[in-house]
Amino acid sequence: MDENLSLLEQIKELLEKKSFLTLKRTLQSLNPADIAEIIHELPQEERVVLFRLLRKDVAIEVFEFMEFEAQQAFLLTFPEAKVRELIEEMEPDDRTELLEELPAKVTKRLLLLLSPQEKEATAILLGYQENSAGRMMTPKFMDLKENVTVSQALNRIRKIGLKKETSYYCYVIDEQRTLKGVVSLRDMVTADPDECISNIMFKEVISVNTDDDQEEVASVMQKYNFIALPVVDREKRLVGIITVDDIVDVVQEEATEDIYKMGAVGVIEEGYFRSNVLSVAAKRVMWLLILLVVNTITIKVVAGYEEMLASFVVLTAFMPLLIDSGGNIGSQSSTVVIRSLALKEIESSDVLWVVLRESFTGLILGTMKGLLSFLWSWWLVKDIAIAFTVGMSLVIISTLATTTGTLLPFFFKAIKVDPALTSSPFITTIVDVVGIIVYLGIAAYILL
Amino acid sequence: MDENLSLLEQIKELLEKKSFLTLKRTLQSLNPADIAEIIHELPQEERVVLFRLLRKDVAIEVFEFMEFEAQQAFLLTFPEAKVRELIEEMEPDDRTELLEELPAKVTKRLLLLLSPQEKEATAILLGYQENSAGRMMTPKFMDLKENVTVSQALNRIRKIGLKKETSYYCYVIDEQRTLKGVVSLRDMVTADPDECISNIMFKEVISVNTDDDQEEVASVMQKYNFIALPVVDREKRLVGIITVDDIVDVVQEEATEDIYKMGAVGVIEEGYFRSNVLSVAAKRVMWLLILLVVNTITIKVVAGYEEMLASFVVLTAFMPLLIDSGGNIGSQSSTVVIRSLALKEIESSDVLWVVLRESFTGLILGTMKGLLSFLWSWWLVKDIAIAFTVGMSLVIISTLATTTGTLLPFFFKAIKVDPALTSSPFITTIVDVVGIIVYLGIAAYILL
Repeated sequence: MDENLSLLEQIKELLEKKSFLTLKRTLQSLNPADIAEIIHELPQEERVVLFRLLRKDVAIEVFEFMEFEAQQAFLLTFPEAKVRELIEEMEPDDRTELLEELPAKVTKRLLLLLSPQEKEATAILLGYQENSAGRMMTPKFMDLKENVTVSQALNRIRKIGLKKETSYYCYVIDEQRTLKGVVSLRDMVTADPDECISNIMFKEVISVNTDDDQEEVASVMQKYNFIALPVVDREKRLVGIITVDDIVDVVQEEATEDIYKMGAVGVIEEGYFRSNVLSVAAKRVMWLLILLVVNTITIKVVAGYEEMLASFVVLTAFMPLLIDSGGNIGSQSSTVVIRSLALKEIESSDVLWVVLRESFTGLILGTMKGLLSFLWSWWLVKDIAIAFTVGMSLVIISTLATTTGTLLPFFFKAIKVDPALTSSPFITTIVDVVGIIVYLGIAAYILL
Repeated sequence: MDENLSLLEQIKELLEKKSFLTLKRTLQSLNPADIAEIIHELPQEERVVLFRLLRKDVAIEVFEFMEFEAQQAFLLTFPEAKVRELIEEMEPDDRTELLEELPAKVTKRLLLLLSPQEKEATAILLGYQENSAGRMMTPKFMDLKENVTVSQALNRIRKIGLKKETSYYCYVIDEQRTLKGVVSLRDMVTADPDECISNIMFKEVISVNTDDDQEEVASVMQKYNFIALPVVDREKRLVGIITVDDIVDVVQEEATEDIYKMGAVGVIEEGYFRSNVLSVAAKRVMWLLILLVVNTITIKVVAGYEEMLASFVVLTAFMPLLIDSGGNIGSQSSTVVIRSLALKEIESSDVLWVVLRESFTGLILGTMKGLLSFLWSWWLVKDIAIAFTVGMSLVIISTLATTTGTLLPFFFKAIKVDPALTSSPFITTIVDVVGIIVYLGIAAYILL
């Protein structure tokens, strides 16, 4: 970062002094991802100046690395010819991503600028469902016919010269474009040039379907440690490939989604800075409303014990402790269960085993806490009956809370709702109602 | 999965009938990752039988894909010669991972079985800190001298014939093994065979240091969309490479760690099934003890208002609602801030901006909720003073809770503690104490 900062200052100075030749030379030694980062730090006019200094092929790579807002601003600033050049030359998967974020009107206009061939390819990609393999794939891959020789194949690679990430594996297809095998560039380089491709290819190709979800794609890629994965349509015809660098983003995206769901924040797709305060508030208020309704039960329960609470006000003093303990211990269980389900460390069929395990953990924790709280509250209020009520309630609440926190994610999964939605606010609310009923019930039994 | 299940049954049947030839043929068509999955489903004796049927090179790949426990069991079952063969042929990075999980005694014994060369390489890898680039890297990569020609380079690749993931990029070094450039296999295949490597290599190589943390490595790899990254020592000498498939695991691991910290679960490194109930309970109990101590304040505050609470028992009825609201709204803020800090969407320097933004969100949410609760509790208890107390408290508690939930992760970061530790139980506890003080204070002001 520090290195980039001083570099940024150098570039700003060069821009100010209009030393474009030196600037051009400086830019040549940089990686497109770094140039994109520098562009983000500049005001719009200087961005354009800098961008125009880039070599055409580098410019397109830089554009691909830029953030959506910066890309959009460029598309609005540049003349039509430059815009056409940019989007025509982008990698198809990056282009799809850009076009799906733009307003439908702009997307339509941009599609018209593309060559018929690129237009068709893009329209097909945009036709697949969001987060599906079809949307993620790039139709630019190296395909080979079964009967070509290694040297013919290598010649074809030399002639077409695809982008780096797409040519380490070549996919072998038959006349119907059905996927038959895969052969690595390394195997071709080390094989006899006259050997037929179908003799050196690996025939049991693992592939995904165009409508498979990105999470499914990521888990296949992770399982086999692949760097690229072919995508086939329902007729098993090869239509694209997905490369591993996109998978890293998927894994991160899915984790963020789960974290936000578990925090009951609602999914913020645009990133923190880009989301608007009111829409964030709207996403969070839902849970709070549910809470309000459920708490009506708590209020009714407390009202029912009004007399007891008036004579033993000290009971009130322990309510926050009991409520917090239950909520915390319950969300600890649900956190573990949700994540383990997401990582496929546990399956739906493990429910009994996991519930027993977590309830047992809850019982142990509850007993430890109950004993401590008993001693501590006895010392605090010098009333053994109250102290016993508090301790006993903690044991029961902890056990019930872990059981609830464990069962709910499984239940959500069974009814095909994302278990991550069993967020801590949700668990807290349910466990609270139960906790208050248990606590006041035990108190009434012991004290009255 | 379904396909694998029926396959598993077929294989079990073949094992039972001892049709080893058919079994061998079936296994030949499978991917090592799938064979490893099948092995995990079999009892130990059948695992060994199946494993012995595999071709030697496939067997080693399968072994690399196996889970740690299964690997360990094999190492204990097999005769020394077989064990030597297995660990000698494993990829160095996979071997390091296995050796660091084994008891130190076993690791020492296994190291002795290795050839002097492999032993040294492994000892070096084991010498780097856990989770550092040095531990993750493999020393098996393709290096080239600056002055060789493309055809000499390709011949060297043909001769050495490295494993697939390590040979798509060749790293160019000088006499001192200093990293000078990188050249892709694709560029070599498409270049003139008589061209000198130093003319076609990319000179501004991005690399990481042996003691860089794995999180840092992952973020460099993600930024540049690389499939491999060279690792250099302090003298800039090339010592290894890290491939992108390991990065996918790092990203997932780090997300899990954050989720568990945020849920105050404590980090479960071994995966859910492998961790033991008592150690899990011990990890979670710490928070609950802190909670107990902090709650002493709440109890003291409530005791201070004993008279008021005895005359207005209905005040007690709203305590769970206020406590829950504050805790939930506060942990929503901390969830967003923690994740955005982890993804580098916000920086420490953004603290003022983010706090203002979140406090404002809290104020909006609080006002909405306060108004609703005012109307709802007025209808419920028919007492406008009580209803006003509840509504007013909700506005203040919500604003304070979002502010606390936002400030704490930044504060933790400033004192170099992982912000993910500002878990919801922690926020809940702090916000509770504040909430009770605000609520009873307002009540005393209005009612008394």
